[in-house]
Amino acid sequence: MPELRKDPIVGRWVIISTDRAKRPTDFSLENNGMKGGFCPFCYGNEHKTPPEIQAYRPNPNGGPPPQRDTPGWTVRVVPNKFPALGIEGNLSRQADGMFDKMNGIGAHEVIIETPDHNASLATLPPKRIEDVLWTFRDRILDLKKDRRFKYILIFKNHGESAGASLEHAHCQLIALPIIPIYVAEEIEGAKQYFIYKERCVFCDIIRQEIEGGTRVVAENDDFVTLAPYAPRFPFETWILPKQHESSFENSSSHMFENLAKAIKTLLTKADRVLDNAPYNLVIHSSPVQDPTNDHYHWHIEFMPKLTKTAGFEWGTGFYINPTPPEEAAKFLREATIEEPVEVG
Amino acid sequence: MPELRKDPIVGRWVIISTDRAKRPTDFSLENNGMKGGFCPFCYGNEHKTPPEIQAYRPNPNGGPPPQRDTPGWTVRVVPNKFPALGIEGNLSRQADGMFDKMNGIGAHEVIIETPDHNASLATLPPKRIEDVLWTFRDRILDLKKDRRFKYILIFKNHGESAGASLEHAHCQLIALPIIPIYVAEEIEGAKQYFIYKERCVFCDIIRQEIEGGTRVVAENDDFVTLAPYAPRFPFETWILPKQHESSFENSSSHMFENLAKAIKTLLTKADRVLDNAPYNLVIHSSPVQDPTNDHYHWHIEFMPKLTKTAGFEWGTGFYINPTPPEEAAKFLREATIEEPVEVG
Repeated sequence: MPELRKDPIVGRWVIISTDRAKRPTDFSLENNGMKGGFCPFCYGNEHKTPPEIQAYRPNPNGGPPPQRDTPGWTVRVVPNKFPALGIEGNLSRQADGMFDKMNGIGAHEVIIETPDHNASLATLPPKRIEDVLWTFRDRILDLKKDRRFKYILIFKNHGESAGASLEHAHCQLIALPIIPIYVAEEIEGAKQYFIYKERCVFCDIIRQEIEGGTRVVAENDDFVTLAPYAPRFPFETWILPKQHESSFENSSSHMFENLAKAIKTLLTKADRVLDNAPYNLVIHSSPVQDPTNDHYHWHIEFMPKLTKTAGFEWGTGFYINPTPPEEAAKFLREATIEEPVEVG
Repeated sequence: MPELRKDPIVGRWVIISTDRAKRPTDFSLENNGMKGGFCPFCYGNEHKTPPEIQAYRPNPNGGPPPQRDTPGWTVRVVPNKFPALGIEGNLSRQADGMFDKMNGIGAHEVIIETPDHNASLATLPPKRIEDVLWTFRDRILDLKKDRRFKYILIFKNHGESAGASLEHAHCQLIALPIIPIYVAEEIEGAKQYFIYKERCVFCDIIRQEIEGGTRVVAENDDFVTLAPYAPRFPFETWILPKQHESSFENSSSHMFENLAKAIKTLLTKADRVLDNAPYNLVIHSSPVQDPTNDHYHWHIEFMPKLTKTAGFEWGTGFYINPTPPEEAAKFLREATIEEPVEVG
């Protein structure tokens, strides 16, 4: 059972793997097997993953219902074969001398976005991206029934240097018994702004940025894509719903179509401008057990991996960004792409 | 003039370079020139750096005093040729619509640790490491006279994938007009603990860890080297002074000798156990304009770069560490090294 341990100074919880601890020599082997060879996420290899949690399987001809863990799916969710957290048991919060720990309880799932080994989220048709988003929603609604889970993280590591260990397009979901520290700080910051202004800080940003336009990358009826005013990384970009909504999973159904288009547009532009750079994409949403609120505004953060993060940033949370967001937004805004077309 | 911009949600200040903004195609060129070729930090190339700020030049034979910007130095400090911040001007704090910004005022210096291109901090004799530490102190005491500077960061990026752009051994110093956010949070966390317990949290950690021993890597009269209870990274290690002291630069003179030995011991053990892995090393100290205090305890954090940091960590500050600190400490503790010997 992994352990969750709390740093006694800043209060940050860390997952410590105790079962398959990595020894010094294990790290040099870490990046083998990324390219080529066997892929457990391709059709026909369904038995090489743990049994599927859910899958979308179109059955257009009305034939016999398709079977689990067989080909024919378009999006497939499986437990992570090497989970960072264990699903069974209770938290057993306890002291460890002056320190605090609990059992590493949580869910760790993989969302396989497509059966096509050579596709990426950027190259999928918008309808297929929409299916991936519906899958996120399904999994959140299912997992939030488990009251042990306070936060559900959905993120994507694309490309080896962004942390992906398999090249077949996939996202990860981690359900946690605690709220991660930066998320808690973001929510607290938004709450303080709301107390002071009686407005959502994200709604204020959206209004000002759409008016100004210099940091806007793209826009559709429901979403705005923009470079934030104080980005940590070159070409960091956020996708925000224009209407206030605190949780991703509570978004109205009609918005998923436009969110899929916004994601496709951003990823396609970024692939063009940044020459298919690796990236991380994280959904920021409210803690799943919290009621709907007026101060926090869910959104997606996209961070291409263009620079190495150095000691300076690690030690301090103080970032040097060599590309002003106005210039990054201009490059992305002006990148011409084919408009997403409606093919299923 | 670079800009300091504040994220309106979490209050994090970011340096945005505006002079030499990096365009998308600049990033792929970023890592050239690391190995081989011309080195501006070697003897004879002193004119290739900006004029030196200070240098140690032993003059044992009582000959004519050595000249600035010529060979003969053992440690040399120069302004960074591509500074992240500008030294001249005033802060001009101002609004930018709903946002906040100020001029990117600060100092950005490079401490060249040795004239020997093939040496590293780990391979330098303890006396030479001590000279580097005295240099840090000299620079802090000089820069803190400038009341614009609230915090002075000293850090080292060793190895290309830890962010070093030149292989010749060097550290960097950045004097900032603001306190970086994680540093502020660390100080605030320590202050809260002090209010609750009326003891320094770091002093408590040191006492408990020395008693327990499982996370201790090394120890001498003045310093303890240990793996923290909830490390973010495999083999993350801290060096802490045993006696409470809030600021690095206020340490008693006799401690620098033992600090140099503690650093040499840790880096040598880490080189052996982790096969010369790249690393970041950061000095955590109190804000330079603050009076001495009872709640914060300066220390050094050492973070070897063994894993890629993925989207999960970036987005949330929530880390998965595959190596328990007890095992990391055991590997480092048991690594046999030659005892540092006293050669000048």
